[in-house]
Amino acid sequence: MSRPPAGPPVELVEVGPRDGLQNHPTHLGTADKVALVRRAVAAGTRRVEVTSFTNPVKVPRLADAEAVMAEVAGDPGLVSIGLVLNERGLDRALAAGVDEVNFVVVASDTFSLRNQGKPTEPAVAEVRRLLPRVHDAGRRASVTVAATFGCPFEGEVPLDRVLRIVDALGAVNPDELALADTIGVAVPGAVGAAFTAVRAATGADLRCHFHNTRNLGTANVLAAVAAGVRAVDASIGGIGGCPFAPGATGNVATEDVVYALERSGHRTGVALDAAIDNARWLSGVLGAEVPGLLSRAGGFPYPAVPDRREAA
Amino acid sequence: MSRPPAGPPVELVEVGPRDGLQNHPTHLGTADKVALVRRAVAAGTRRVEVTSFTNPVKVPRLADAEAVMAEVAGDPGLVSIGLVLNERGLDRALAAGVDEVNFVVVASDTFSLRNQGKPTEPAVAEVRRLLPRVHDAGRRASVTVAATFGCPFEGEVPLDRVLRIVDALGAVNPDELALADTIGVAVPGAVGAAFTAVRAATGADLRCHFHNTRNLGTANVLAAVAAGVRAVDASIGGIGGCPFAPGATGNVATEDVVYALERSGHRTGVALDAAIDNARWLSGVLGAEVPGLLSRAGGFPYPAVPDRREAA
Repeated sequence: MSRPPAGPPVELVEVGPRDGLQNHPTHLGTADKVALVRRAVAAGTRRVEVTSFTNPVKVPRLADAEAVMAEVAGDPGLVSIGLVLNERGLDRALAAGVDEVNFVVVASDTFSLRNQGKPTEPAVAEVRRLLPRVHDAGRRASVTVAATFGCPFEGEVPLDRVLRIVDALGAVNPDELALADTIGVAVPGAVGAAFTAVRAATGADLRCHFHNTRNLGTANVLAAVAAGVRAVDASIGGIGGCPFAPGATGNVATEDVVYALERSGHRTGVALDAAIDNARWLSGVLGAEVPGLLSRAGGFPYPAVPDRREAA
Repeated sequence: MSRPPAGPPVELVEVGPRDGLQNHPTHLGTADKVALVRRAVAAGTRRVEVTSFTNPVKVPRLADAEAVMAEVAGDPGLVSIGLVLNERGLDRALAAGVDEVNFVVVASDTFSLRNQGKPTEPAVAEVRRLLPRVHDAGRRASVTVAATFGCPFEGEVPLDRVLRIVDALGAVNPDELALADTIGVAVPGAVGAAFTAVRAATGADLRCHFHNTRNLGTANVLAAVAAGVRAVDASIGGIGGCPFAPGATGNVATEDVVYALERSGHRTGVALDAAIDNARWLSGVLGAEVPGLLSRAGGFPYPAVPDRREAA
């Protein structure tokens, strides 16, 4: 095919160390988590969600949050992100020296109650109260709106609910807002509509977060990018899944998203070969095949041939 | 999210019995193949690529082509399709009573040589010679252009090559033309561009054929439909892969495509629950997990809730 027209660059945010590992059957030690973060940066990723500062009883896989951060804080080229659900988490994240705090609110009340112990509205109010502390500390503050495209308990989530959350958060000026399809039910049409509406309602940068539960992850990433999103959550190997969301499966795989974006004309800054290497390494560390497909299929074109894309 | 606007209906063409089984590690007996065809029809599929009339030495999995056709020919609700690569295959397909003959030509010479023993141009000339016999016999004739988006041996395939094939086939008025991403390298932007160009160059109906090799199968189906395609090849469970294409993996899964299309506002006529049942049944018969994801994840919304899509 002809070389695609150049699109805007798109930044990948590596969430494997957090979303990928928080519920994985294999428990990785601190050293492997540090290696995962550093491999992501070496492949060209700038922002990495290093860990979450959550209750270690509820999320034992990430109980070593401070230990991981102590290793990687200040690593050259790394913008470290810590996920936070409440004030206790924020205190820990700031003390650990994260460069960016990512708050989470959930668009449906039932899931919000299970995820953070309160319905959506009080959870949003808490973020409004806490987020200015991040800016006061000179760090970046982003917010992910989870279950935007559907709730495992309530079913459909009206877009109006999402827009009310976005509107309420506007008062504290988050640097970035993400819509997350936590349980992997979205289709590209709904994704485009949601991000277009959110884009009109906020001055924040936009990020997307998709799971490939129903084989639509990459399609949804491309729809989000077409609607103006310039940052994409992805996990090396496509591992992942929320412990409180029944049926949730892996995030979109970093290497799969790099292939899809680069071949569609978007520069990501991430080297596909290195991303594939990372997925294969992670598969070895976890002792399990990862769901991402590029580490099996390889890139394209292959075998190496002279670039014929301009020969037609 | 809000209910999507209704889009045009899209027909699924079940290719599992042919593309799904032709290279599968498990050899299915004739009775299981017949059951697969009948399950597809029972789920709401009308057109089924029942088998190929190819050399049984090269494609031993489908050596029982005549036996399968003898069982299902005339089944109510079924439009049976037989894949054909040459004159010998056409003779067999017509004798076996298929309702539709699907010819294949390959867009790159090297792959065409391996797939059917001659480069693209003489293969196209042969289809031009043979296709009128299908119409003379009162059957439907379609042509699939394979390796449209990339060749495993040559790399990139210029769109001009595909358009020259489409133009050459115009003389014999195929009822339908399909573009096939045989090795799963396409991205939605290239798919939209190719089908838009082909649509302008032919009066034939358009069909698409995607493999999910790099996790872009569903994205590409939706891009093809947005560009005017109204028929989509898919295989129950997402099984499949071409024996002559290194690295090829499964077709897009019928149940995954039904979910993606129906949730995007396109009627397919296929019942998602029945399609999922079929994938689980096939998984049992093959003794292996199938790559399609809907049979693991289930549909949405769940659990069954009152339709809240119009409540927002």
